[in-house]
Amino acid sequence: MMHKLLILAQDGNKYRALIEEARLDHLEFATQPAADVDIVLGEPSLIKVALESLSALSWAQSIWAGVEPLLDPAARRDYILTNARGVFGKLMSEYIVGYLLAHERKMFQRIEAQKNKHWEDSDTGTLRGKMIGLLGVGSIGAEVARTAKFFGMTVRGYTISSEASTHVDMYYHGNDLLKFSTGLDYLVNILPNTNETRKIINANLLNSLPPHALFINVGRGSAVDESTLTEALNHNRIAGAVLDVFEQEPLPKDHPFWTIPNLRMTFHTAAPSLAEDITKLFIENYRLFNEGKSLKYQVDFKRGY
Amino acid sequence: MMHKLLILAQDGNKYRALIEEARLDHLEFATQPAADVDIVLGEPSLIKVALESLSALSWAQSIWAGVEPLLDPAARRDYILTNARGVFGKLMSEYIVGYLLAHERKMFQRIEAQKNKHWEDSDTGTLRGKMIGLLGVGSIGAEVARTAKFFGMTVRGYTISSEASTHVDMYYHGNDLLKFSTGLDYLVNILPNTNETRKIINANLLNSLPPHALFINVGRGSAVDESTLTEALNHNRIAGAVLDVFEQEPLPKDHPFWTIPNLRMTFHTAAPSLAEDITKLFIENYRLFNEGKSLKYQVDFKRGY
Repeated sequence: MMHKLLILAQDGNKYRALIEEARLDHLEFATQPAADVDIVLGEPSLIKVALESLSALSWAQSIWAGVEPLLDPAARRDYILTNARGVFGKLMSEYIVGYLLAHERKMFQRIEAQKNKHWEDSDTGTLRGKMIGLLGVGSIGAEVARTAKFFGMTVRGYTISSEASTHVDMYYHGNDLLKFSTGLDYLVNILPNTNETRKIINANLLNSLPPHALFINVGRGSAVDESTLTEALNHNRIAGAVLDVFEQEPLPKDHPFWTIPNLRMTFHTAAPSLAEDITKLFIENYRLFNEGKSLKYQVDFKRGY
Repeated sequence: MMHKLLILAQDGNKYRALIEEARLDHLEFATQPAADVDIVLGEPSLIKVALESLSALSWAQSIWAGVEPLLDPAARRDYILTNARGVFGKLMSEYIVGYLLAHERKMFQRIEAQKNKHWEDSDTGTLRGKMIGLLGVGSIGAEVARTAKFFGMTVRGYTISSEASTHVDMYYHGNDLLKFSTGLDYLVNILPNTNETRKIINANLLNSLPPHALFINVGRGSAVDESTLTEALNHNRIAGAVLDVFEQEPLPKDHPFWTIPNLRMTFHTAAPSLAEDITKLFIENYRLFNEGKSLKYQVDFKRGY
């Protein structure tokens, strides 16, 4: 049986070239939404727009981890949705380690000192011996935990029930969220967007952190109560925050986040979907699909990830 | 036989408390230079000043890696000099990885964007697959190499003859300096200050690097031809530099480095001597000294390290 693939991504040509190189069996390319397309590869927001014209759709491979647009209860769910997983862990780890070190090494403070021709040789901190807490330990969290152990940190993990990563020193679940967070040097959110994770970073959680703590959000903006975080940062209740994701993206020009001095923003760049990585994943899944086997990283529409 | 220890360091009280805790055999403390002091622990510049009053000096343990003040040919050399080694590798690795990630992640560029309320989501780079070159692979370089491999980099090492670290992919020696540097994404200097390393980072070496290369100096300022580096940075012949050490420290106010936009300075803070680490080293060496055995990390006055 022949399959027909539609690619819906900004760098679609790159994806097409990489897939053509792999010379996959029984695969043809479509250039626009059509009734004979049974596979789509692309960005969830673009796939959503095309959904109604894809009557034969059998499988959609998202090039992103987050698939919110396709979880809209009004949208079709009569196809297999797989997302990108297992490819962001190393990029996320680089991002997190990079900003932890920027904090410990006072990088931004020393840049300001340089502008003022001031020999700023105050003490630097180290990652060694610090306590990091990971909200969410899936494939990304496991890689972050492995990296944290490499640098000599102690790792706490908060999950629904999984204790799969051996690089987490202590696991917490359910009602133990504040036990998890109390005493952390660094709090990192990697949770997906679900009903349970919405505004999980609230006043109680932020108040449980010591004043020297740094908060990093690479999960979803919806996990943070943004006005509470604004207040905590403005009153120096924690040392700082590094945010890659926001409730609304791009962030509105009048949002208070723009001007908070101890807040660094990175504009959803922490873990870009690299065409090379995602294509590998697609090819692996296509072979399973073509053999009628079950696919990797299937999204549960109800659970939301 | 009793030994008498004089501590000469800015945080001398911290060192004394840590050593007292260890309750070492046959050890008394002196509070000032005296004729019965046979051991001194401290900063080389302070030790040098006291040298003439320490007629019974048998062993000096430096709390720094660099011991230049004590290498002055006019100064005494009739004692055993040991320096701090094996304790800076992890701190140096954190520093180097931190600034490599700051570069790849465009951290300073994104901070400027935030000030202008600009959603700066241009692509980020990654350490994975990059080529790093280490000028000098002693105990610090070996730890940097190990860290670079953790992040998926390819590692070149330039040494006099040693090929001890197994985390270096390719070694270079002698006249192969430009073979070593050609094509590097990152060049890191970790060499000590000797006649052979003076101004080793010159026009030839800088011209051999690609325009996107980043140069990091955590070795000694004397290794760099500073006016040549100034010119290379001002003409964007390389992408940038991160300097922790300088020919003259603190850097004179009229030095051109202060105002070069693609130069980050960190004011000799890359690898602080932590009292806990150095005391461990001292205690280990004291036990050997007390037993009449040869000490760890002995400095060769002629070689200079």
